[in-house]
Amino acid sequence: MFSKTILVLGAGRSSAALIGYLLQQASQYEWKITVGDAVLKHAQTHVGNHPHGEAILFSIDDIETSEITIAAADVVISLMPAHLHPQAAALCIRLRKHLITASYVSDEMKRFDAEAKHLGLLFLNECGLDPGIDHMSAMQVVDRIKATGAEITSFESFTGGLIAPETDPENPWRYKFTWNPRNVVMAGQGTAKFLLDGKYRYIPYQQLFTRTTPVVVPGFGAYEGYANRDSLKYLDTYRLPHIQTMVRGTLRNQGFCSAWNVLVQLGCCDDSYVMEDIGAMTHREFIQSFLPSNEPTENVIAELFNLKIDGEELKRLTWSGLLSNDRIGLTKGSPAQILEHILNKRWRLQPGDKDFIVMWHRLRYTVQGEKKCVEAYLTATGTDEVQTAMAKTVGLPLGIAAKLLLQNRFRAAGVTIPVTFEFYSPILEELRAYGIALHEREIEV
Amino acid sequence: MFSKTILVLGAGRSSAALIGYLLQQASQYEWKITVGDAVLKHAQTHVGNHPHGEAILFSIDDIETSEITIAAADVVISLMPAHLHPQAAALCIRLRKHLITASYVSDEMKRFDAEAKHLGLLFLNECGLDPGIDHMSAMQVVDRIKATGAEITSFESFTGGLIAPETDPENPWRYKFTWNPRNVVMAGQGTAKFLLDGKYRYIPYQQLFTRTTPVVVPGFGAYEGYANRDSLKYLDTYRLPHIQTMVRGTLRNQGFCSAWNVLVQLGCCDDSYVMEDIGAMTHREFIQSFLPSNEPTENVIAELFNLKIDGEELKRLTWSGLLSNDRIGLTKGSPAQILEHILNKRWRLQPGDKDFIVMWHRLRYTVQGEKKCVEAYLTATGTDEVQTAMAKTVGLPLGIAAKLLLQNRFRAAGVTIPVTFEFYSPILEELRAYGIALHEREIEV
Repeated sequence: MFSKTILVLGAGRSSAALIGYLLQQASQYEWKITVGDAVLKHAQTHVGNHPHGEAILFSIDDIETSEITIAAADVVISLMPAHLHPQAAALCIRLRKHLITASYVSDEMKRFDAEAKHLGLLFLNECGLDPGIDHMSAMQVVDRIKATGAEITSFESFTGGLIAPETDPENPWRYKFTWNPRNVVMAGQGTAKFLLDGKYRYIPYQQLFTRTTPVVVPGFGAYEGYANRDSLKYLDTYRLPHIQTMVRGTLRNQGFCSAWNVLVQLGCCDDSYVMEDIGAMTHREFIQSFLPSNEPTENVIAELFNLKIDGEELKRLTWSGLLSNDRIGLTKGSPAQILEHILNKRWRLQPGDKDFIVMWHRLRYTVQGEKKCVEAYLTATGTDEVQTAMAKTVGLPLGIAAKLLLQNRFRAAGVTIPVTFEFYSPILEELRAYGIALHEREIEV
Repeated sequence: MFSKTILVLGAGRSSAALIGYLLQQASQYEWKITVGDAVLKHAQTHVGNHPHGEAILFSIDDIETSEITIAAADVVISLMPAHLHPQAAALCIRLRKHLITASYVSDEMKRFDAEAKHLGLLFLNECGLDPGIDHMSAMQVVDRIKATGAEITSFESFTGGLIAPETDPENPWRYKFTWNPRNVVMAGQGTAKFLLDGKYRYIPYQQLFTRTTPVVVPGFGAYEGYANRDSLKYLDTYRLPHIQTMVRGTLRNQGFCSAWNVLVQLGCCDDSYVMEDIGAMTHREFIQSFLPSNEPTENVIAELFNLKIDGEELKRLTWSGLLSNDRIGLTKGSPAQILEHILNKRWRLQPGDKDFIVMWHRLRYTVQGEKKCVEAYLTATGTDEVQTAMAKTVGLPLGIAAKLLLQNRFRAAGVTIPVTFEFYSPILEELRAYGIALHEREIEV
């Protein structure tokens, strides 16, 4: 009855657009879309009573059921937490199925490369937004510039999941949780490594949020980017081994980083120990735990970090409720867990909230002795708190890749990411039809 | 021929004073002192041809020889790296021997407590300088104050291994490596936890060297203390459960911490990754790797941390050769390993150098409604670069404890530390004869 079966594993926050896209295509191509989640209701919510859809209870740890389910599919799209992907990959190898994810290629995933190649299977990873559309849109520009005989000297790229201008106009952070809140709180821990003017550079966590790159997107506003953990591996991935500057990072609205840095400096993002006696503690007392004195909190913070007491940083901390006398409402936790819990009270998406994605690349290059610079950007706005821009920009590339795969449009096999023409060209082309497209402008050098 | 045998395991940097003391006592008490080290020459150097001494090759991983060696001893003093102590402890249990170390009680060591108690064996740890003399001298003051019916409200204690005023008078850090250099470079990583005015407080690494306690030792100078990782466990250990302030930490000369903080902030103490391409790198290029621009290093650092270009911090960094154009001379390493290597060029003890120990306690207490404060300090100066103050203050308490143990002066058994009268009173009394004694003064409140 169905020509092909696509199995989607995981029906959480970012799955709405993917499942919607697949069900829409399913009627045309006679596909069956099976959606499995550890919570059956999550899968059912997205599938509804669509004639081409099936919602099932799924846990990758239940090997027997997993085998039967994957055996019935032609391609598996995994939205499960990244650490579960190797389990899915092992089953896909055994049952000869293709696999698509939006996650970074882990060392464990890499180990399936030879076997997947040998079996002619495609294990396509990093095919969401970031990583995903960032790779594809960057490589489209890179390849086009290189084709003119130019030499690319600098590549900078920043992507952020923010909120739309009309959402929460009084929110001074211009930010809410549109992705895993824990990852937001832990962001930047470790050391950022990149290339600047031909030299390897390192930024430790304690400096990261003070060393931002200003980014302006015409018609949208002023942003700032901080470097991600490892930009060096993209020298090879992007086929730019002789480039002088290579930085990839995260984008936030201007002012976010200096306020967030206060929390970083105080140690509020530390996940390495459990705090004492937090049962009766208020938000303000949580912050006070990291201060050197019992003087009024605002004054101590202002003095400690040389901030104005009525400045933007304290305004943001106050708006987030971090200085309120509300009870935290947890009985135990690390600083990072408690901070996430407090922020979630103000940063959770509310009904009607729209998120907003901004992606920005800047490439400098030399062509016939002339120095040039191009900036490219892409934005996407969510429809509401479920059909988020994040869900669309993560889900659509996955769905499109699955469709193209079933249409035999890819020749690549093995563990790979979409940085070559055969992937980025048709995927970006179809994304354009959904209003997700890169805008470019030449910048005077 | 010999009445008792004391086995010393490890004849490294800190063993000179211990072995000297034991050999000196050995003639009087008819002891044999066996000194084992993985490098036989190290043991021989310290033992010489003393009639009561024997130098042997020893490795705790060679179980058979270890068994024979430990079986022949009455008490074992381990100066081996702390992670080897559980192996020694296991053999001491099996062979029914007492064990003395200068290391913190690890969770592994704790597990021997019940069995050691059952066998009537003493496993005395934290019996060197810090931990060791700090515990003993603190508890002597604590117990004396408590005996007057006073309530102790605050306990602060800082100890540091520095250099004597006459050594390296031009060294602006007033510091050289008198202890494991790696531990100095890694010092303070993690989060410091303590009690301040009745509240739990936390200082993360990125703030630690900016939140120092000023310490003045009459006749010696101005110092500053930074908090150690966990001061909270001493609420129980020091029998001060109702105290309002409890901080233990490390002492440095004034100005050390703000200069060291530059290295911390830049990420030079990070041991979590290996740097790229350091083979041809100079000291200055190492520092530049952590800077945001290629402008002159001094200017960039001054601007980044709001320092004067001719200020104390840059003066210290320059003196240590961190901004020189010398080759590093390593082919690979983490930032921490490279920093240690560079610092070792200037911070290694030279012939004739004298190190200098400063220990300082401040206790506040209330007696009959009156608030009081007492400061106590202890200093020790090295004889030269071998008979260091560090070796004396670590080694003598160990040696004295071994003597007292063989004289059946201790009733305690099991895994313990010298915080009770039966330990601290006789050990501190004998230390006084070596010029190592606490001086106290009442401070006006």
